[in-house]
Amino acid sequence: MITIVKIGGNIINNSEKLDSFLSDFSKLNDKKILVHGGGREATELSNKLGRETKMINGRRITDLDTLEIVTMVYAGLINKRIVSKLQDFDCNAIGLTGADGHIIPAKRRPPIPVDFGYVGDIDPSDINLKLVSLLLNNHLSPVFCAICHESKGHLLNCNADSVASALAVACASLDSVRLIYCFEKMGVLSDPDDNMSYIPLITQNSFTSLVENKVISGGMIPKVTNALNAIKQGVDEVRICDASNLLNNIGTSVKA
Amino acid sequence: MITIVKIGGNIINNSEKLDSFLSDFSKLNDKKILVHGGGREATELSNKLGRETKMINGRRITDLDTLEIVTMVYAGLINKRIVSKLQDFDCNAIGLTGADGHIIPAKRRPPIPVDFGYVGDIDPSDINLKLVSLLLNNHLSPVFCAICHESKGHLLNCNADSVASALAVACASLDSVRLIYCFEKMGVLSDPDDNMSYIPLITQNSFTSLVENKVISGGMIPKVTNALNAIKQGVDEVRICDASNLLNNIGTSVKA
Repeated sequence: MITIVKIGGNIINNSEKLDSFLSDFSKLNDKKILVHGGGREATELSNKLGRETKMINGRRITDLDTLEIVTMVYAGLINKRIVSKLQDFDCNAIGLTGADGHIIPAKRRPPIPVDFGYVGDIDPSDINLKLVSLLLNNHLSPVFCAICHESKGHLLNCNADSVASALAVACASLDSVRLIYCFEKMGVLSDPDDNMSYIPLITQNSFTSLVENKVISGGMIPKVTNALNAIKQGVDEVRICDASNLLNNIGTSVKA
Repeated sequence: MITIVKIGGNIINNSEKLDSFLSDFSKLNDKKILVHGGGREATELSNKLGRETKMINGRRITDLDTLEIVTMVYAGLINKRIVSKLQDFDCNAIGLTGADGHIIPAKRRPPIPVDFGYVGDIDPSDINLKLVSLLLNNHLSPVFCAICHESKGHLLNCNADSVASALAVACASLDSVRLIYCFEKMGVLSDPDDNMSYIPLITQNSFTSLVENKVISGGMIPKVTNALNAIKQGVDEVRICDASNLLNNIGTSVKA
């Protein structure tokens, strides 16, 4: 069993929650991979440097200046903070971008209809599974930020959810895989204002009716759609849960 | 044969020289490791953020704010720039700090006589040779910045020359090792104002008389002393040369 966990920016920005989460992550017994976001600190550094953050549909426009900032913050500051904390919890973490060992190649997103700049998308079949296996088989836990690269030398800013999903799909050819999205809510909520209204189980069939009946809406629709896509491509389970519930089964489980 | 190359900040700050150097590095046939410095960009970022850079005897005082900056610049910006360029030259580089895979543990320097803050020193016998071998045997070329860590979770700012030397000494138990310090001068100069006055060969015996006769002075004395210490600990050869001469034998060779 390989467990791939994605941890979102809101947890990373909270030192106590992050420590507690990383302590839990280190206790996972099986082969494990962590993928982290980290948007707020990049925006803070941009602001301090007097650079404007441009977003379209919640996605950062990444010009060369912005690429430098996110590389510093994601691949440097946050990635190494997480690695050193995991080492403290006796988890042998190794922090990587997709460029390291050519482990996650990406393709630059076409500039039409929206030019997001140095932003990339990942095809799971491009992932360097030989290196992923080598690390996991040697008791190393890769910790990825969402900076990847094009084969021809350019770093690309990718989406951390997509990196986690692509890794999970790729690893499904190696072993059984569960993919866990940890964030600050209990799961996929039927009432966005009630954190306890999480839906324990979503399947392809139930999802269709949940959307039709508007039980699930907004940003949760693409999240669950992506989870179901991962399931279709061989991932055994996708969990969407509060970061504090990593080690138990509270949250939303997405299955076939 | 394992080749360990250290590249200094003055080359890193020059995009053309860096490209040319990395192209040469990628052509080295044998197992290879790159260690990079990168002081100037850290100072520039400190200045832009309105933070003061404090140096004592040419060494940076590293408080927590400074540690964040050097982690961003060394482990993020510069390390990943080098990795993506090496990938472009078909060298399968993997960028690491000493914290990643617990590969280079360091010890925080005692605060007496000078409190340098989060600054560490490395004992070659602490280096995780099993992981170094694993990477080299799998055709990966580790690229290290000089950020290491204490076993208990703190990142530490180390000296890149010392990281290179510690790696070389540690690797000497695996294979024959050459250590190459690349910088912006032709080698150890007998006349600091004449770049062609480099001394082709220095041995322990010749070093003693070169110092007595004041042919070698200033910052070159500790550099050659460190090179001779590496030789005493099993490194076959230390070369000190211009970055443009990586692939030929022009420069200063330090041997037993």
